[in-house]
Amino acid sequence: MDFYSLIIENIIIVCGTFSYAVSGSFAAMQKRLDAFGVIIVAFVTAVGGGTLRDLVIGDTPVFWIKEPYYTFVIIVGAMLSMFFWKKVKRFKKTLFLFDTLGLGFFTILGIQKGLSHNLDAGSCILLGTFTGCFGGIVRDILLNNIPIIFRKEIYATACILGGGFYFTLTALNIESSIAELLAISLIVLIRIVAVRKQLMLPRFY
Amino acid sequence: MDFYSLIIENIIIVCGTFSYAVSGSFAAMQKRLDAFGVIIVAFVTAVGGGTLRDLVIGDTPVFWIKEPYYTFVIIVGAMLSMFFWKKVKRFKKTLFLFDTLGLGFFTILGIQKGLSHNLDAGSCILLGTFTGCFGGIVRDILLNNIPIIFRKEIYATACILGGGFYFTLTALNIESSIAELLAISLIVLIRIVAVRKQLMLPRFY
Amino acid sequence: MDFYSLIIENIIIVCGTFSYAVSGSFAAMQKRLDAFGVIIVAFVTAVGGGTLRDLVIGDTPVFWIKEPYYTFVIIVGAMLSMFFWKKVKRFKKTLFLFDTLGLGFFTILGIQKGLSHNLDAGSCILLGTFTGCFGGIVRDILLNNIPIIFRKEIYATACILGGGFYFTLTALNIESSIAELLAISLIVLIRIVAVRKQLMLPRFY
Repeated sequence: MDFYSLIIENIIIVCGTFSYAVSGSFAAMQKRLDAFGVIIVAFVTAVGGGTLRDLVIGDTPVFWIKEPYYTFVIIVGAMLSMFFWKKVKRFKKTLFLFDTLGLGFFTILGIQKGLSHNLDAGSCILLGTFTGCFGGIVRDILLNNIPIIFRKEIYATACILGGGFYFTLTALNIESSIAELLAISLIVLIRIVAVRKQLMLPRFY
Repeated sequence: MDFYSLIIENIIIVCGTFSYAVSGSFAAMQKRLDAFGVIIVAFVTAVGGGTLRDLVIGDTPVFWIKEPYYTFVIIVGAMLSMFFWKKVKRFKKTLFLFDTLGLGFFTILGIQKGLSHNLDAGSCILLGTFTGCFGGIVRDILLNNIPIIFRKEIYATACILGGGFYFTLTALNIESSIAELLAISLIVLIRIVAVRKQLMLPRFY
Repeated sequence: MDFYSLIIENIIIVCGTFSYAVSGSFAAMQKRLDAFGVIIVAFVTAVGGGTLRDLVIGDTPVFWIKEPYYTFVIIVGAMLSMFFWKKVKRFKKTLFLFDTLGLGFFTILGIQKGLSHNLDAGSCILLGTFTGCFGGIVRDILLNNIPIIFRKEIYATACILGGGFYFTLTALNIESSIAELLAISLIVLIRIVAVRKQLMLPRFY
């Protein structure tokens, strides 16, 4: 990976982590948690997915032990949410965009980690989906809600489709970095369209 | 292990996984989750116990990363539950039987894994019990219920008694494969009798 | 570590584990769980923090697989809680003291484990805080409550301040064992003062 794309990657990781932390903080403040509770919920929302990914493939210590700057970004995100929540609310669309970019990028990060452990495409997509989604699931469990991704939004579906798209592209001999970019774009696009059009998955029973 | 018992073992694993997936799917449909939510709940119900077992003994990547056919069985189970739930309901007894066979077999699988890591009998029984029960606990947590095994049924108790029985038999120099069969039978028997007679553990407070 | 301090350490570990088990048992009995449910909740309350610590740093098998006497102490604690809950209630202050000593000691145990894995101070404090607090979080999730530490008490904050104090002292070249003792004392002190004075962290929203 050249210097330029390394910078891009790190900018998106930081933005994704930051925006997951903000989304966790807001959910925690809605349930009237104290300042520490807000920071912890922000933390698990931001690192939950990557932690599960690292644990199930046995890549320990997990990433936030190895790279402490994640913790720093999360604490900053939680602090800003608590002190400026009135202003942040006005940026709802910006936050949604960050959250969605994070979703796309974290999914691809999970897939890359799976590939570097020589896993097959199916397991890689599973890992990518967990990396993108699990943080939000733990956030909702901690706050005593049924995880929202199970009920209202096309979220994990976007990860799965994006992951499948990535492997389709690489099977067609498209260069890995371009395939990543296109897959992230697809995930972001699906989620934006789904929220705009209020698309939902079918329900049974 | 000879070829014949290998086939038997795999049939029971598939049946157990399938039936845990179906039990997860039905619980998820009752809470009106969307199609993706149903698949995820089916997944964690079926692999939760084995995942915790693999994580605590450090046997990573966990089994469903190494053996992708589990994921396939689970998706099939969830799909069938969603499309044929009216018919499946009529098979309630068949499902209960599968679930109970799965419980017995997964408990013994956990014990075997503990033995292959040279753990003592107590830790092996603990591992076996987790392997059999933890999936159902996570299912109930995800769906915002207090885990049912804590309240209504003799479930983990059957695993513990079955595990103790297994080690008693091997201590008496009974061959391992026969001891396994007898222990599975005991677990199945205890659970069937407990549900039939509505046996419960004592409660305090 | 000399023989004398080894004995002290083990006494405090046993007391901490025992008291976490009792706190889990009482919470479970309040929700009318059966005897097995009480034991399981006691177990996760007592080992939850150390398990997460061992998993994220990759130190598997986790401690309660390697040292089965933990399980024994927990079962004794749960049994005593169930049979003597009327009497134990009278010892509420004793229990609070054990719980608080356990919090202090488990925090330092987590920090020590982090140091033995060559982690930086920030990650060590994070590990110590998880070791002390995570068991109570899982207890509350299993019982379908929003974790109490997020809402009512200064708990994790005591761990973080105690951990920071420990690293400040060692940076000042104070001997490790004395720094540990002082850090544990600070954690215990903060928690006692916070509960006495009903101190709380600020809340937003």
